[in-house]
Formats: sequence, structure tokens, C-alpha cells
Amino acid sequence: MSTVMLHAVVSVDGFVADPHDDPGPLFDWYFNGDQPLAAQDMADPSPGGLRVSKTSYDHVRPVWDAIGCMVIGRQLFDITNGWEGRPPTGDHVVVVSHRPKPEGWHPEASYSFVDDVTAAIATARELAGDRMVALTAGDVGGQALALGLVDEVAMDVAPVVLGSGKRFFGSIDTQHLLEDPHVVVQGDRVLHLRFRVRR
Amino acid sequence: MSTVMLHAVVSVDGFVADPHDDPGPLFDWYFNGDQPLAAQDMADPSPGGLRVSKTSYDHVRPVWDAIGCMVIGRQLFDITNGWEGRPPTGDHVVVVSHRPKPEGWHPEASYSFVDDVTAAIATARELAGDRMVALTAGDVGGQALALGLVDEVAMDVAPVVLGSGKRFFGSIDTQHLLEDPHVVVQGDRVLHLRFRVRR
Repeated sequence: MSTVMLHAVVSVDGFVADPHDDPGPLFDWYFNGDQPLAAQDMADPSPGGLRVSKTSYDHVRPVWDAIGCMVIGRQLFDITNGWEGRPPTGDHVVVVSHRPKPEGWHPEASYSFVDDVTAAIATARELAGDRMVALTAGDVGGQALALGLVDEVAMDVAPVVLGSGKRFFGSIDTQHLLEDPHVVVQGDRVLHLRFRVRR
Repeated sequence: MSTVMLHAVVSVDGFVADPHDDPGPLFDWYFNGDQPLAAQDMADPSPGGLRVSKTSYDHVRPVWDAIGCMVIGRQLFDITNGWEGRPPTGDHVVVVSHRPKPEGWHPEASYSFVDDVTAAIATARELAGDRMVALTAGDVGGQALALGLVDEVAMDVAPVVLGSGKRFFGSIDTQHLLEDPHVVVQGDRVLHLRFRVRR
């Protein structure tokens, strides 16, 4: 049965981006090393290619390899234009949205548009098979946690106080216990933490 | 010259207490071990006495011993009644408050009441001498960080999502970079982190 992992890079005060959706220095660790993180980064000599430290690579790469399907909100889809049909991790993407897939948008890509969080996670679990579902933190992620649909919380904590912005757990206002972190890995400008959700 | 450390126990979403000032499960680690944390806890067999794990004791006790003076907000003073004149760490307390010390309140205790954050930190530095100033997180702490008066941020991160409540950095809305943590210690229901503020 597929595990659902809620994930993002986050500031020490719990934000995943500033109020204008800019992650700013939260993403420094994606570009401050010499290890290309993905196949497309190996081929990409541009400054846009992800280059992380060896420590972060050794942590992140196996996690990415274990992902079968991503679940994202419509806002992230719109900002990235769905990564032009190529999911950064896994083979499938489920977009939680009241609006349908844009007409003519990359018909070859395995992107599903579902307007309900519970249904979206169920679809993603099916698509992921034995692999993990990676759910992007934010409003949709917080709703999923509140609904009891999240198995694990993965926070890549950047040593930054953002002060304000988009919250990792969205507008959730209920209390949830996690287990002690089973992963604590210190990279360069990031501390990788993974916690299982306590049942 | 005295170092100013901004400190609190904090949830993974950045809160130091719920909206009613209740830290709830954030404080579990203070009571789940067998090591009395302070002299008064050794003499105190009640459930109110702090008993932490050996790992947390070995981290926290030297930090507490290094503290000369605390700086707190008026709210914490009122909630605890100033710990009846006995600071939990250090020998002196500076209370940031527009209201004076309550008349007749523990005249023997070294508690100063100062109505300005900058002046409060200056007073605390003098009182602390060679030792640290420990500044409690929250509104006053956030103001001090924004004013450039904080040298270090110490977060005891409990594996809890609080959802809402009092923020570690108060109502700060500016961005601040920290160094990578120089302390990462995993206790039982707490992850002890210390970051220097980047200058």
C-alpha cells in the first residue's frame, strides 16, 4: 500500500514561500553543491539546473526514486505550467483543482485533475502502486493532514526566518502529533527531517 | 561581551503555544525522562518537577548554566507570576513591559522592568556579564531579532503540528538568514537546534 508523504522546503518559522510565492533563500541548497539531482540536471549546464551537496544528494535521490506519483495544488501547476508535462519526481501527477486540465496541454503527460482532496489522494495511491505518493505542502497538504490522509511529513528546513508567507500546513488549525524524526540529515543550508504521523 | 540567545520550545509549524497560551504537547519532553533538570526539581517529587531524558539533560543543563540573565515579556511574567522571584535560569530577569513591577512583589528578587526592547537587552547584557542573555521567543523576541539584537536562535522542536497559536518570532514580517545549525541533538519528543544569526 502506497505511503503518502507531505513534503516541502520550509523556513524555521514554517513558511514554504513568501507572500508572493517566492521561496527566496529557502532554495539555496538546491544550487550550492556539485551533484546534479536529476537526469535533466546532468544534461543542463544552466544555472537553473539543480546542483546539491553530496550529503543532500545521498538523502534526496533515494527519496525521489521511491516516489510514484505527486499530488499538487492548482497554484503550483499554474506557476510551473506543470513542469511542461515532466514531473520532477515519479511518473504521474494529480492536480487538485476545480478547473479542468487546460485544453491541449501536453496530452502525452499522465496528469489527472481531481477536484476533491480525498479523491485526489485515492487516485494518486492507485497510480503510485508500490511507490510513494508525494504531496506538496501548502493548503492542499494541510487539508490532507487534517483528513488523516498523510502518513509522513518531510521537511527540508532552511536556516531562514521568512517572517510571513505561505504556510507549510496551509490553513490547518487542528493539532496533530508526529513521531520523533526517523531521518535527521544536516546538509549545506538545509536540515532534512522526516517524521511519521502518529496514529 | 554577552551573547543574546532567542529561545523557546516550538512546534514544527512555528508556534510556541496554542491561542490560549497552552504549550500542550510541546512540553512533553520536559516530563518524560528521569533526570531532574534543575536544583528545585531534584527536591520536588511532584509531577510538576522537570524530568528529562539523559540526552536532553546533557544538552540543556550546560546551556542553562551559561545563562546569566533572562529577558521575558510581560505576559510570561503574569502567567508565571515571575516564577515567584526565582528565575528558572540565571540570576536576573528583565521584563519588557509598559507597566511597572507590581507593588510589593518579591522585593528580594533581581527583576528589572524596562519598557523598551533595546534598553531591556542592554540592561540584560550588563547584568549577565560574561554569561548569556536568554530571550524568550514570542513578540518581544521577534522584535529583538528584527532590531538586530539577537546573536543566536535556539529552538527545541517538538514533533507536533499545533495549527495555530503564538508564533516563535511574534509578529515579525522581515526576512533573516541564520547560519546552519551548530547544534542538532535528538532527544525524546524534542529536537534541540541552535543557529547563529548571520551578520
